[in-house]
This record gives sequence, structure tokens and C-alpha cells, in this order.
Amino acid sequence: MQHFTSVKDAYNIDKLVNEALLMKKMPYADKHLGKNKTMGLLFFNSSLRTRLSTQKAAQNLGMDVMVMNVGADSWQLEMNEGVIMNGDKAEHVSEAAAVIGQYCDIVGVRSFPGLVDREYDYSELVLKQFMKFTGKPIVSLESATRHPLQSLTDLITITEYKTVERPKVVLTWAPHVKALPQCVPNSFAEWMNIANVDFTIAHPKGYELAPEFSGNAKICYDPKEAFEGADFIYAKNWSSYEDYGKILSSDPAWTVSEEKMKLTNNAKFMHCLPVRRNVVVDDAVIDSANSIVVQQAGNRVWAAQTVLKEILLTQMRVESPYLF
Amino acid sequence: MQHFTSVKDAYNIDKLVNEALLMKKMPYADKHLGKNKTMGLLFFNSSLRTRLSTQKAAQNLGMDVMVMNVGADSWQLEMNEGVIMNGDKAEHVSEAAAVIGQYCDIVGVRSFPGLVDREYDYSELVLKQFMKFTGKPIVSLESATRHPLQSLTDLITITEYKTVERPKVVLTWAPHVKALPQCVPNSFAEWMNIANVDFTIAHPKGYELAPEFSGNAKICYDPKEAFEGADFIYAKNWSSYEDYGKILSSDPAWTVSEEKMKLTNNAKFMHCLPVRRNVVVDDAVIDSANSIVVQQAGNRVWAAQTVLKEILLTQMRVESPYLF
Amino acid sequence: MQHFTSVKDAYNIDKLVNEALLMKKMPYADKHLGKNKTMGLLFFNSSLRTRLSTQKAAQNLGMDVMVMNVGADSWQLEMNEGVIMNGDKAEHVSEAAAVIGQYCDIVGVRSFPGLVDREYDYSELVLKQFMKFTGKPIVSLESATRHPLQSLTDLITITEYKTVERPKVVLTWAPHVKALPQCVPNSFAEWMNIANVDFTIAHPKGYELAPEFSGNAKICYDPKEAFEGADFIYAKNWSSYEDYGKILSSDPAWTVSEEKMKLTNNAKFMHCLPVRRNVVVDDAVIDSANSIVVQQAGNRVWAAQTVLKEILLTQMRVESPYLF
Repeated sequence: MQHFTSVKDAYNIDKLVNEALLMKKMPYADKHLGKNKTMGLLFFNSSLRTRLSTQKAAQNLGMDVMVMNVGADSWQLEMNEGVIMNGDKAEHVSEAAAVIGQYCDIVGVRSFPGLVDREYDYSELVLKQFMKFTGKPIVSLESATRHPLQSLTDLITITEYKTVERPKVVLTWAPHVKALPQCVPNSFAEWMNIANVDFTIAHPKGYELAPEFSGNAKICYDPKEAFEGADFIYAKNWSSYEDYGKILSSDPAWTVSEEKMKLTNNAKFMHCLPVRRNVVVDDAVIDSANSIVVQQAGNRVWAAQTVLKEILLTQMRVESPYLF
Repeated sequence: MQHFTSVKDAYNIDKLVNEALLMKKMPYADKHLGKNKTMGLLFFNSSLRTRLSTQKAAQNLGMDVMVMNVGADSWQLEMNEGVIMNGDKAEHVSEAAAVIGQYCDIVGVRSFPGLVDREYDYSELVLKQFMKFTGKPIVSLESATRHPLQSLTDLITITEYKTVERPKVVLTWAPHVKALPQCVPNSFAEWMNIANVDFTIAHPKGYELAPEFSGNAKICYDPKEAFEGADFIYAKNWSSYEDYGKILSSDPAWTVSEEKMKLTNNAKFMHCLPVRRNVVVDDAVIDSANSIVVQQAGNRVWAAQTVLKEILLTQMRVESPYLF
Repeated sequence: MQHFTSVKDAYNIDKLVNEALLMKKMPYADKHLGKNKTMGLLFFNSSLRTRLSTQKAAQNLGMDVMVMNVGADSWQLEMNEGVIMNGDKAEHVSEAAAVIGQYCDIVGVRSFPGLVDREYDYSELVLKQFMKFTGKPIVSLESATRHPLQSLTDLITITEYKTVERPKVVLTWAPHVKALPQCVPNSFAEWMNIANVDFTIAHPKGYELAPEFSGNAKICYDPKEAFEGADFIYAKNWSSYEDYGKILSSDPAWTVSEEKMKLTNNAKFMHCLPVRRNVVVDDAVIDSANSIVVQQAGNRVWAAQTVLKEILLTQMRVESPYLF
């Protein structure tokens, strides 16, 4: 693995999941792999799970970790090329990324979309510039359109908790008070579409994901119908892709309720967190025995550790081609 | 030791102090204890001594450390249960704490009181929610009503510097330009009341601490009288508990001056820091040979390290009951 | 080496450069030196290269590292002595520095000038107070008037890339939209004046550096003339020392262009970064094969690591005088 920014970087998702579940049993078995290697974590936006779980994963592999809130700790970065830098951006990403690449062996980057200009967001400029200029493997810590460490975590968790060979997995839109990115649903759909699951996306009309992400998933516009027979209910709010960045509905029928959960096949409840209680999901559901949101977040460590291990191994193979 | 949030968690304060003073002589003797263990430090408020000394203590024990400024680095947390989260708080403490507990073996939390609603502050909601939801040992890095790592430090320092078996220790209120919490005096009183010292609290009328904290301490309302024969003068400002959060006095007679120090038994001067010079204490006092504020702050490492060691040992006993 | 705040702390700059270039070949050869030692990094201002490269350097030496943004993470510090602290500064540097010295073996401090009061800035009050009160070696991470880790880096880089025994090095002022400190040019001049180079400073009239820094350097007021025959072009903006902190020129003739680079002896282009593209230097120059700004920034690690190693060795000699 050279970078990790989408499911396309995972040549075999089942192998990754197995590796992660093995790692969970022996967290420190690879502590030698990261010796004298440095992980840089760059945050353009807030983070709790990603910040802590990726640090923990890198430390489990014996890596040193450096965390930086870009903008607050360092300088505002100019992302566009060819501009006259006489505004408020003190540094260009071409230098910043290249310099960080001098100090770090793997670089993680979190940069959310602005939700104003769809073309700009979906161009993934920030992520692409870091990939272009850093000269080191880039791990997406959630970019403008995807959150692949979350999706790998989700597949690990589904694999761990499934009780049938091919579970029915439902990604359901839910209401929220703020306009949120499409990253988590995009990425989740991208992974579920190639995983061994029966995959449905449920949302109000107007909330269709970009076709390259929704792919062949079944689409359901009814807030209840999709729940029938589901083994996993994955709730998440997102803003409209069509009417870009807009909130089109706040219909409480889409809140995940006990009543709706009763329609399922005793489904597990999942969410990437943070979650707005009693808006996205009722207390009764997220506090129930079927809620696995905390265990899911716990698996973020093993997803990140598996990805970092794969990247470290690839680096070693490049440096020492006769080693393996 | 399972948690460390008040003197009640220290079943034997003399043993803790002895352990700390031994540790000070051999700081790295227990570096194996924290191997592959992670300390999480969560700050809802500013911190210098606590931030650095607890990091240092954890590193001395071989632990990995992750530091997070809650709100700035991550999300605003909702502390109350059962609410509809449609406001500015993006995450509930029940998820945030549980998730952090997935990544950390011990979690330190700093959260100051608001000084507006006494009942709310004294309910210690933030600390209690972290204890309820984290599923891991919680160490108070100063909560709404107590600062136990400071108080253990203070007892260590008094033990180190005392020249009589049972010294006279005076906690004296002093003026300040801002309304400050009662945490440090509350906690100091709680510890001194069971330590082998002759303990007096001096303050203007209206500054009485809550009775559960002042306990059997002698109370003195005269800014000079209490200093007579004192072996230790511990200065600290706090706002009123009765007229909650209010500043009732700025009388400079309560500033610790050279003149007042002359009334003592050549007393050592202590303060938890940060301190406002020439408001709380005159330069001549804090810069004198009898001022031990820096050494006191230095002892924060050994207090934290002792507490973390006790918690790590308790965890091991739980995990391997036949080990000890 | 006891402190590192200017070239005066480097008793032999050639030896330092050689040590750094050796270290670059064997980055982990001294990993035992920093065992159980802690590096504290204090930032009063933003930082990217210094923040990350000094962390990396300390980790390469086996040290633990604690990073703190002063003011944001901790408290506003009062720097002046004898004041009545009833304003917005919660802590005095005399306590803060002394306490940090209790927790750290080496302390790095970054504090930029205000560019309002020349006498105040050039008194280097912040740095001097930390040197006075910390009780531990202080490493300047850029102070009000100097940036010595940058200058050592620059000399390392010139040594690495020079193709003649005594290269012609030109420090050229360049335009900028903001008033910037004189630290980097001051410090660069201070180092070049004793290095084995032919040194010229080029700038518009009114941008003369303080005489104690420019020393015997050739001064050139023509934006092109100085480029003739140069082996290294070192670009940097600074505000006026005479008309203190003011921007006196924004003449684009001072921007480093391809045309001007053609006047040189195939010169390498250097800049400390961050740099404003197409204001300080044209894209065509900084993106050319002769631009070594990224390699230069990479060398920050070896400069810092060399300085930290020298300080650790000095500490050991003091602690164990018969060891060496």
C-alpha cells in the first residue's frame, strides 16, 4: 500500500479486515516495524477519534508521532498553484507538504469540504496537493469526499458482529441541525458496494449521493421500509449533493427510533460519531444492547494500525527489494 | 487505587507521600510498569504545571501520552443526559468518554467550575460523567471543586520541608483581580484535615469554604493573627462560596507581605501557581529564600507519578489476581 | 554548549557543521544520549519547520518531547519585573520558566518581536528572562532578533551544496505584504560574517540591518548588481530597522526572478520558508532545479539535533566531570 485515501488503495479488503482482527488480538506484535519512523498528523479540522486512534495505532507500531493543527499551530496554506501570494495565506502547500515530508515517514491529513463549491470540494484539491508534494505516503484522516479509515473500521466491525454470511446493511440518512459533508456515506457506500453484504441506502428524495459512490446500492426513499430485515443499521446525516451543501429535510420520521429498530432482524446500531442524540438517533436506541457505536470507535485503532503497517511494509520492500 | 479525584481515593496519605519521595530519588525505577499503556490528558481549560508534570510523570513510567484540548482540538461536549442535541454541542460525553476509554488506559480530566451556579459546580457533573462513561481510571487534573494532585504535592512538599513533627500550616486567602474557583483551598483543606499538621484557614468574613471541606480547621478572620508561629504559609485566592463566585474583598492587608511573614516561625511560603505578584504576594516574599513555590511545583511530577503508579498496579492486580 | 541563542554559543561553527553532516548519515547513532531526558518546546508564535524538526531531532536523540503553545494551552505571561500583576497576565515568567525548568532538561522558546518598540525588541527580554529563570539550557526557536537554528541550517546547506571553496553568498531583501522581523537576516549575517564565504547583503536604502549584525558584509543597493557571480542567492523580506518595523518598499524589481538568477554563477536559491510565491520569488525560480529550499528545510533536523547533542554532552560533563 502506497497511500490510503480511498477503497482503491486497498487491493484486498478482506485481507485487510483479517489483518486488523488479528492485530486486535496482538496489538504490540509489530512494535519493531515503526522503530525510528515518524508519523505526522495534520489537522485542518477538529478531530477526536481520528486524532487519538491514529496516534495510538502509530505508537502500537513503535512510531514517533507529531500532531499539528494546521493554521492554529503553523500557517494558513495556499492550495492553488500559480497565484500571487499577497493575501492572508503565508505559505504554499507545495513547500509546506514537501517540508513535512522531510520530517515524517507517513503523513495523515484531515481536511473537510467547504460545502459551498461542489466542483472544488469533489476535486479533492487539498488531499491531491499533499499527495503531489509531500513525497511520502499520505493517509486520509477524512478528506472533502471520503473517510476511508472510518469505512475500513466499519467493515471490521460488521465482520466482527455479523451472524449471517451476507448481512443486510442499511445506511440510513437521519436529520441534523447543521449541514454535514457526504464523506462518511460516500466512503461507506464505496466499501459496502464491494464487500460481501446486501447493501441499501435510505434517504429522503434530494439526498442522493454522487453516482460514483452509491454505485449499485439499492436506494430506498421510505424512512421505515429499508429497516425491514436489516442486520445492521448505519445512521448518518449528510447534506444534499444535488442541491449542494443544503439541508432539504429535518423530518423526524428519519430519526432512528426504537419503533423502527423493531422492524429489523435484531439489527446492530452503528454510527461513526460524533452523533446528535435525540436528533439522529433516540437515546433508547443508542443506549440499547444492540448499539455497538463504542466498539466501532474502538476498532478505529485496528483499522489505522493495519493501514500504517501495510504502508511501512511497502516502504521496506521498496528500500530493500530482496528482503521479502 | 481505582480513580484519583479526592483524598478519599488515597487510602493512606502517608504511604503515598513516602512513595513519592522515594520516586523522586529513583524517577525511572518503574519505567517498565507503563509499557504499552497510554495516558490520555483532556483539558477543558488552560494548564501549565498539570499539563507538563503529568506528561512527564507518565513518561517516567514508560507510558505513551496523548494530550487533547477538548473543544479546540475536538468537539464541544454535551454533559446533560436526555437532552435533544440540536444546539452547539456536537457530541455527548457518554460517547466521547467511552471512546476515549477505548484508546487510553488512564484518563486525566481538567474542567473548571463556571462560578455561576453553585449547585451545578458542586455536583461535579463533568468529572462524574467521565467516571461513569469512560470505563477506565479517571485522574482529576482539577475539577469544579477539587485539585487533588496539587494537594498531594502540597503534602509531599510540607513533609520534605518541615522542621517539626507537627508543623503549623496556615492557608491564607489573598486578594486577586478575578473571581477564582475554590478548588485548591477546598482540596488543600481536605488533605490537611487528615494530615499530621496543626491547620488554620484565614480569610475575610464571607469567604468561608463549604463546611465539608473546611471541616475541623481553625478559622481566623484577621489577616495577621493566623501568621503567628506558622511554619508554612500557603496563600491562595478564592471567590466566595456563600455569595457564590463573587469577589467580596480586595483588602491589601491580606496580601502576603514581608511584614506579615516576620510574625511566623520563619515559615516557608507556598502557592500552587500561577500567582499574581504584588497582589497575592509581594515580590520580597516570593523571591525570598523561604519561598518554596518552584520546588513545590517540581513535586507535581512525583505526586502524579505516584498516583499513576498506584493505578497501574491496581489494574495489574485486577488483570492478574495471582501476580502479587 | 550551555545555551544556543546566537552564533556566540557555537565556539566552532565548522565543527558544528561537520557534526551535523555526519549525523545526517547516521541519524540514530546517539539515541542513547537523550534517554530519560525531556525537551520542552514553548511557542509564543506559530511554527511549522521549527516545531516539527526540533521534535524530530529530540526524538532521534531518544528524548521525550513536550510541546506547549504558551497563552493558548497555558497562561499569558508577564515578562517585566516589579509590576503589580492586576492586568490580563495571569503568571509571571519568573515562576513559569522556573517551573518548566523543573520538568524539562532542555527548553526551546520561540517568541517573535512586536515590531513596535525597537529598544524593547532588541533587548530580547523574553529570551533573557527564560535564560535567567529556567535554570536549564535554553535553545532559541527564533527570538526577537535572531533565528540561530535557521542560520546553522543555512551554513550546513551551503557547505553541502557549494562547488567552490569560498562561495559568493548573497542575502537579498525581497518584497512582502506584511512587516516581518529582522531575525533571519540578522542571524544569517552574523553566521556568514564568520563563515568561509564571500558575503553580500542587498536591499533598498532604508533597510540596513543593525550594524552589529551586518558587520563587515558588502552592502549593495541595486536589485541586480549583487546577483552577478553569486553561488547562493538567499532571499528574505524584512521590515526596516531604522524606521523600525515599517515597510519602505514594495518594488517588484527586488522579487527574485529567472532573469536575475541568470546573472549568477548558476546559483542555488535558498529561503528559510514560509515564502510568498510570486511576491518574494517567482514560481519559475523556486520550482527550478537550482532551488534547494526543501533540502534546506530538511536540514533543520540536523542543525537542531547537533545543538541538542552538544548541550546533552555538556550537561553530562557537568554532572560527571571525570567521564570524558
